[in-house]
Amino acid sequence: MENWLIKRARLTPNRVAVQEKGQQLTFQEVADQTKKIAAQLNVVIETEQRIALIATNTIASYLVIMAVQQLGKTMVFINRRLSFDEINYQLADADISVLITDEDYHQQLKVDKQLTVSALSTEKSARLDLVENFPDDAVTSIMYTSGTTGKPKGVMQTFNNHFFSAMGSALNLGLTADDAWLTAVPIFHISGFSILMRGLIYGMRVVLLPKFDAHQANELLVNHHITTMSVVPVMLKQLLKDLPEDVSYNSGFRTMLLGGGPTDRATLKRAQAHHIPIIQSYGMTETASQVIALDAEYADEKLGSVGKPLFPVSLKIADHYGVPVKTGNIWIKSPTLTVGYLNQPNKLAEKCRDGWFNTEDLGYLDDDGFLFVQGREGDMISSGGENIFPDEVESVYLKLPEIDNIVVVGVPDEQWGQVPVAIVIDSKLSATDLKAYGREKLAHYKVPKRFYFANDWHRNASGKTERIKFIAEITRLKELK
Amino acid sequence: MENWLIKRARLTPNRVAVQEKGQQLTFQEVADQTKKIAAQLNVVIETEQRIALIATNTIASYLVIMAVQQLGKTMVFINRRLSFDEINYQLADADISVLITDEDYHQQLKVDKQLTVSALSTEKSARLDLVENFPDDAVTSIMYTSGTTGKPKGVMQTFNNHFFSAMGSALNLGLTADDAWLTAVPIFHISGFSILMRGLIYGMRVVLLPKFDAHQANELLVNHHITTMSVVPVMLKQLLKDLPEDVSYNSGFRTMLLGGGPTDRATLKRAQAHHIPIIQSYGMTETASQVIALDAEYADEKLGSVGKPLFPVSLKIADHYGVPVKTGNIWIKSPTLTVGYLNQPNKLAEKCRDGWFNTEDLGYLDDDGFLFVQGREGDMISSGGENIFPDEVESVYLKLPEIDNIVVVGVPDEQWGQVPVAIVIDSKLSATDLKAYGREKLAHYKVPKRFYFANDWHRNASGKTERIKFIAEITRLKELK
Repeated sequence: MENWLIKRARLTPNRVAVQEKGQQLTFQEVADQTKKIAAQLNVVIETEQRIALIATNTIASYLVIMAVQQLGKTMVFINRRLSFDEINYQLADADISVLITDEDYHQQLKVDKQLTVSALSTEKSARLDLVENFPDDAVTSIMYTSGTTGKPKGVMQTFNNHFFSAMGSALNLGLTADDAWLTAVPIFHISGFSILMRGLIYGMRVVLLPKFDAHQANELLVNHHITTMSVVPVMLKQLLKDLPEDVSYNSGFRTMLLGGGPTDRATLKRAQAHHIPIIQSYGMTETASQVIALDAEYADEKLGSVGKPLFPVSLKIADHYGVPVKTGNIWIKSPTLTVGYLNQPNKLAEKCRDGWFNTEDLGYLDDDGFLFVQGREGDMISSGGENIFPDEVESVYLKLPEIDNIVVVGVPDEQWGQVPVAIVIDSKLSATDLKAYGREKLAHYKVPKRFYFANDWHRNASGKTERIKFIAEITRLKELK
Repeated sequence: MENWLIKRARLTPNRVAVQEKGQQLTFQEVADQTKKIAAQLNVVIETEQRIALIATNTIASYLVIMAVQQLGKTMVFINRRLSFDEINYQLADADISVLITDEDYHQQLKVDKQLTVSALSTEKSARLDLVENFPDDAVTSIMYTSGTTGKPKGVMQTFNNHFFSAMGSALNLGLTADDAWLTAVPIFHISGFSILMRGLIYGMRVVLLPKFDAHQANELLVNHHITTMSVVPVMLKQLLKDLPEDVSYNSGFRTMLLGGGPTDRATLKRAQAHHIPIIQSYGMTETASQVIALDAEYADEKLGSVGKPLFPVSLKIADHYGVPVKTGNIWIKSPTLTVGYLNQPNKLAEKCRDGWFNTEDLGYLDDDGFLFVQGREGDMISSGGENIFPDEVESVYLKLPEIDNIVVVGVPDEQWGQVPVAIVIDSKLSATDLKAYGREKLAHYKVPKRFYFANDWHRNASGKTERIKFIAEITRLKELK
């Protein structure tokens, strides 16, 4: 296909492409400014095929991403919340020599050249021919999966992946000429970057929020024409907490796209009271964002489900060998599936069978074909021959108004092999109370044997609780009595 | 991709898929009834890969088309307006032994088995497994091009062609869950069949009109929720003639998609007075319907243009060798491009260079990148070293209120090589008047040397005037004095 940015600048030159606070650029302006930045970058880049970026959700970062794409190079997105060691691992793995950051020089980072987003000025005039085409199979972006086990893996995403992702989303959520998508999820993550790609493909206004702030986001959603927003559960809860009773979002608002975990009935009820349609979704870096989604009309009836596969996507529940079973691994077949992990040529093939990708999440379909996710395969706790899904136990405890955050993990146990224990951030309830509550709501073997206090709550860039970090520190945590 | 119909029945089982007069079927009902028809068809079909259909725009025909697709067979669409000889040519070329028609047995048709649409009852119960997937590259439909020169050619269209066609259209026209597309153009033609495919892909209601009738169509457009309609110029004129002043279409009406030729300012003004947004478009059987479209907002400013290429489509003006020129052949690169002509393995390659397809239409781009089509390359008249485009001459004469139909063709001339002559259906004006008018508006060499009366007006299935038929009969026509 033709270069999407050039195409957009030709088709809808005067539509707003991107907006941040008071500033906004049309597609023509984005094309013009991107060209200048690409020319400056081109001087810095030698033979490298991959450029790394540590970015926030700003127009300046947006333009740099466009510029790298326009040079036919691959953008390696680095999660800005990682430690220097973690970043250095990814820089080395991706063989990066040029790193662009949104802040000043980081001495701790091991890279030949560092430059800041602001050094790439749109004021400077420079001439350069941009790429003519966006080849279907060219890798345009790499993102490292947070990886609950093992080293992070660089997920390679092609233009084709992003195109079909945008199509699947449009076929589900609809598309109008005045759509605008509020982007408060990070643009270095697939949830954010996929919005930028949809912006180019749809000719849609992308509204950037450099840092998620519930009050600021609500102000935009109430008073401005915004049709769609992507959130993770914790963001949704904060938005609803901040939103005054009897206040609704702007009349064009159509979709609150919720990823990264399920919502609960109380949150859903609060959203419904404000007429906010929640579309629960499921996806991952490997599938270039959402591949399963639950229509708002089923939000109540199918609470806890992530819905049905998008139009271009297929889904099956199968065992490790890909043989269909009632409850088991969630397998996906999709044109949005990554073409592979960087430097690990066999890794994707190991997770695939006959074109199906094993997500290594566990789940089942109900009689109406709605998918329910039970958790990561590796998270499952095997206790005395019984399987325990931490997600299920957590969701039961999250119904308590006293519990805002909880994580359940398995620890070794002589008698049962493994037993479940829970970590909370603080609690007005005693361990005895919590156990009593659990015994009332859950099979006894599912009730956490011990409760601990966390010092910090470990979340990854997408807002997901990082179970692995809690497991690692559990022996150092203080037990709740 | 997964079988689109099964997918739709799973995703949106209760949405209306198709509607005709008082009757309507949901996607689930279409899937159920299609299964029964497919089972009955399966008994009739032996090893044949291709099944032919002569159909009108009815639910019964729609279900047969779905059934053939569900059996993994290729539907060969026969234009019901063709002569028996022409149909027999196509049946033989496509090696058809099973023909399904919407009327009774035709003795004149050379085919082993004939059955009627109504014989395939949805009442009968039958069991059959439908195809699991719609393979991207499988040929699902064949349509013969009306072909202004030479024998008709069977254009092979794949699922991928139809998918990208639907995507290109959605990215241009938008998409909402309550869209409904009025289908009065024939479903055996790409303009109609592409709507059926969009219906499956979008989950959209398709409203069928068995025979175009301006009054009936207006009744639907005024009083019912219909968002989109496909028309050719003659249909649009009739709709506007029938529509009472001060009457507008239903408030959801968004797009009158006009193909098969340009409109004129008077018609456009009338449409605008009724708030009917006209999207002028350009496409052909080989590109699986529209590939270029003009936004309604440019309808006035760029009158006569067919617009800009849809998002997945590229366009260039080039000579026969594909070398860019200012005015020349219109070349298209598109994922909707046919994979070839049946039984003519080299024919498509002859029209292509480096992935670009030569439409053999002539045109140019204005400074803003809008495409203007001048006509078929073969239609161009070369007179005394000057090129004359019949379309241009015709459009000048069509501005006269006395002229409803006119066709300009070249005839041999000793002095000039060729000269233009015109055929009209009747005229209150004399040849002298018409020539005087032409000399006022056109360069003298472009003014038709003679005017003839037509006995019949030759139009093909898409409503286009068939120039070739007029050329063939010109010596038998009566000259206007």
